[in-house]
Amino acid sequence: ERLLRIDVDTRFHSSVRDEPADMIDAFRRAAGRVDVVLVSGGLGPTRDDLTIEVLAETFGRKMVLHEPSLRVIEAFFERFGRKMAESNAKQAWFPDGADVLPNPVGTAPGCMLEAEDTLFFCMPGVPRELFQMMDEQVVPRIAARARPEGGGVVRATLLRTFGIGESNLDDELHDLARGEHLSLGFRTTFPDNFLRPVARGSSAEEAEERLAELCGAIRERLGALVYGEGDEESLEAVVVRSLIERGLSVASAESCTGGMIGARLTAVPGSSATYQGGVVAYADAAKTRHLGVPEALLEAHGAVSEPVALAMARGARERFGADLAVSTTGISGPGGGSDEKPVGLVWIGFASAGEEVATDFVFPFDRERHRMLTTQVALDWIRRSLLGEERVAPRYLQLRPASSARAGGRSQ
Amino acid sequence: ERLLRIDVDTRFHSSVRDEPADMIDAFRRAAGRVDVVLVSGGLGPTRDDLTIEVLAETFGRKMVLHEPSLRVIEAFFERFGRKMAESNAKQAWFPDGADVLPNPVGTAPGCMLEAEDTLFFCMPGVPRELFQMMDEQVVPRIAARARPEGGGVVRATLLRTFGIGESNLDDELHDLARGEHLSLGFRTTFPDNFLRPVARGSSAEEAEERLAELCGAIRERLGALVYGEGDEESLEAVVVRSLIERGLSVASAESCTGGMIGARLTAVPGSSATYQGGVVAYADAAKTRHLGVPEALLEAHGAVSEPVALAMARGARERFGADLAVSTTGISGPGGGSDEKPVGLVWIGFASAGEEVATDFVFPFDRERHRMLTTQVALDWIRRSLLGEERVAPRYLQLRPASSARAGGRSQ
Repeated sequence: ERLLRIDVDTRFHSSVRDEPADMIDAFRRAAGRVDVVLVSGGLGPTRDDLTIEVLAETFGRKMVLHEPSLRVIEAFFERFGRKMAESNAKQAWFPDGADVLPNPVGTAPGCMLEAEDTLFFCMPGVPRELFQMMDEQVVPRIAARARPEGGGVVRATLLRTFGIGESNLDDELHDLARGEHLSLGFRTTFPDNFLRPVARGSSAEEAEERLAELCGAIRERLGALVYGEGDEESLEAVVVRSLIERGLSVASAESCTGGMIGARLTAVPGSSATYQGGVVAYADAAKTRHLGVPEALLEAHGAVSEPVALAMARGARERFGADLAVSTTGISGPGGGSDEKPVGLVWIGFASAGEEVATDFVFPFDRERHRMLTTQVALDWIRRSLLGEERVAPRYLQLRPASSARAGGRSQ
Repeated sequence: ERLLRIDVDTRFHSSVRDEPADMIDAFRRAAGRVDVVLVSGGLGPTRDDLTIEVLAETFGRKMVLHEPSLRVIEAFFERFGRKMAESNAKQAWFPDGADVLPNPVGTAPGCMLEAEDTLFFCMPGVPRELFQMMDEQVVPRIAARARPEGGGVVRATLLRTFGIGESNLDDELHDLARGEHLSLGFRTTFPDNFLRPVARGSSAEEAEERLAELCGAIRERLGALVYGEGDEESLEAVVVRSLIERGLSVASAESCTGGMIGARLTAVPGSSATYQGGVVAYADAAKTRHLGVPEALLEAHGAVSEPVALAMARGARERFGADLAVSTTGISGPGGGSDEKPVGLVWIGFASAGEEVATDFVFPFDRERHRMLTTQVALDWIRRSLLGEERVAPRYLQLRPASSARAGGRSQ
């Protein structure tokens, strides 16, 4: 993603174990063959972190101490109120002639070394440190040297969809990205499917225009299945922003998801402007005491039932004084199922001033994915209710025949 | 990890983009050079999923339809109440002569192809499907053919530590893994640090004995900093098991962590035997209404304060009828800080029948990691309280000088 922005094609990606001979081999194969080599990991303080020494050895450079880095590393430890461990000093040594790349979020600086017409960038392996160094240090350096290939310009983006399977996406969209200027990639990150539209043009304007046109056509065809675009627009970020824009507050009542809805909403900075809080009502007593679910209802229908899901959503809405509330109660497994209520069964509830509704699903997944998917549907229902869209199940799942008749109908 | 168990050394790992020419090049370079090639990804139903066709092309095999796979894929879709998308049929085609590897958790089967004395295994890219296929299909096939290298046997494990930095681990432990039979690797998965002790021996017994000895020495030196071993013993799994063993119940009162403590505890199957539930008290009103935090306390000290953290833990313990409770209230950022209460400040509270305590930390991390670390410390405090260990901060962080005096002291 980050490289596409500056029109770099990734030719190949190799990773080798921490074995000097294999690393030297990899560096040698890359030198002269490609313009840029991005190396991540092996900058740490331990004895098996050898990347930079081996790079120096490969191209016959000696290692030199970079005093400013040593001071930065010392300062980093002072921030934590600690003395620098001896082994961290090794992170301030670099091959002669290398450019040192600062790492504002970690101890290990990176470096850039030019050898045999190839630029080697050594970066930390920790994703957060790596991405920041890529954005701030590496991409600008590559962009400054990049030779446009055939004069073309590439623009790409990420469209985030929930509720439709990868093969259905391909079937529905494959006619949109025809021709040499356009392509469409797919990536699954359960329970979402991401699309990567890519457009080429002879100028930035042309590529951007083609990309906008392709995205417009995709959105028109998929409608509310596209919930966001780019790295920033996670489903929870879109939900929180939409709620704040409309001046609405929200609360949660979670049984099987155990706090995951609250955790995702509060992951968004500024969510306190809409999210009031919630109850993780894992035990039945907690459902009664903290959400006002009548004991008689629990006894008559069991915790995983339509009336309990409705009472949980209603209770959370009233007790937290929120405009909207969602609830979850289900059997995520691996145990706890019965013939009548199989593992995978879940009721998701929704309450607003004008409407209370609950629908049951059987998600045929393991515990972790069952909870992730339940959380995602609950968040998606909030988004859909704000858009005036039907609150539906993911298209790749179908309701149990027994419950289809009830689905979408108002309860009570 | 999975390969180490069967004594396979990973020589190198390459990944290429979905470009046939690059894939052919990678397959050709591997053929004959290594015994086994593990390929993951590119088995999906979309047009950019080309792995198997390219593999067939590389070694001059034609593609043939594998009828049993077609029927399995159709059955998979029936489970979801859907017709198979046309594009999924392509997932039942394999190179002539390949062994098809079933995929019980997804639609795409894998395959094994022997070419030029090298075994190529093509597997799905989805981690869950990949790991299951590795365990059930690939590892046994490799093990059946493996030629022990020099007759040696390797045994390895994973020791999970929390509360000590990687460089300190290396400094404290490097003398333990000396000699040709032992080695010690390090891996950071924020906020944990994992150790990978590896032992070699001339027999399985010898390797296992050496590994047990090394692990014993590490545990003796690190004490309670080691919380678990292997893939299964996550901190939450250890906490839930320890609580159930002691017949104790637990509840949570979360502000800045927003449900993450509940989500992690309930991720463990069987956690309903100990976890009663919790309140996500994000708004002040929720802290008062659902946890009984007096309004006057909130006004006098603010939500992020020692008395509020204590009242939250006490309220959760009493209102959920639990033996123990933990609470969190902090400023995870990026906004919301002041001179007196900077971004990163958090109070973590703990309540049991005999003790109520809260400690403040300043975790100098971004919002996501601040919340992860706060959750981890709260879970670790439960574990430490059960072990009779001091409830401390991670060693790589230090308390603010102002609060050090109070730390660990009983409040009230």
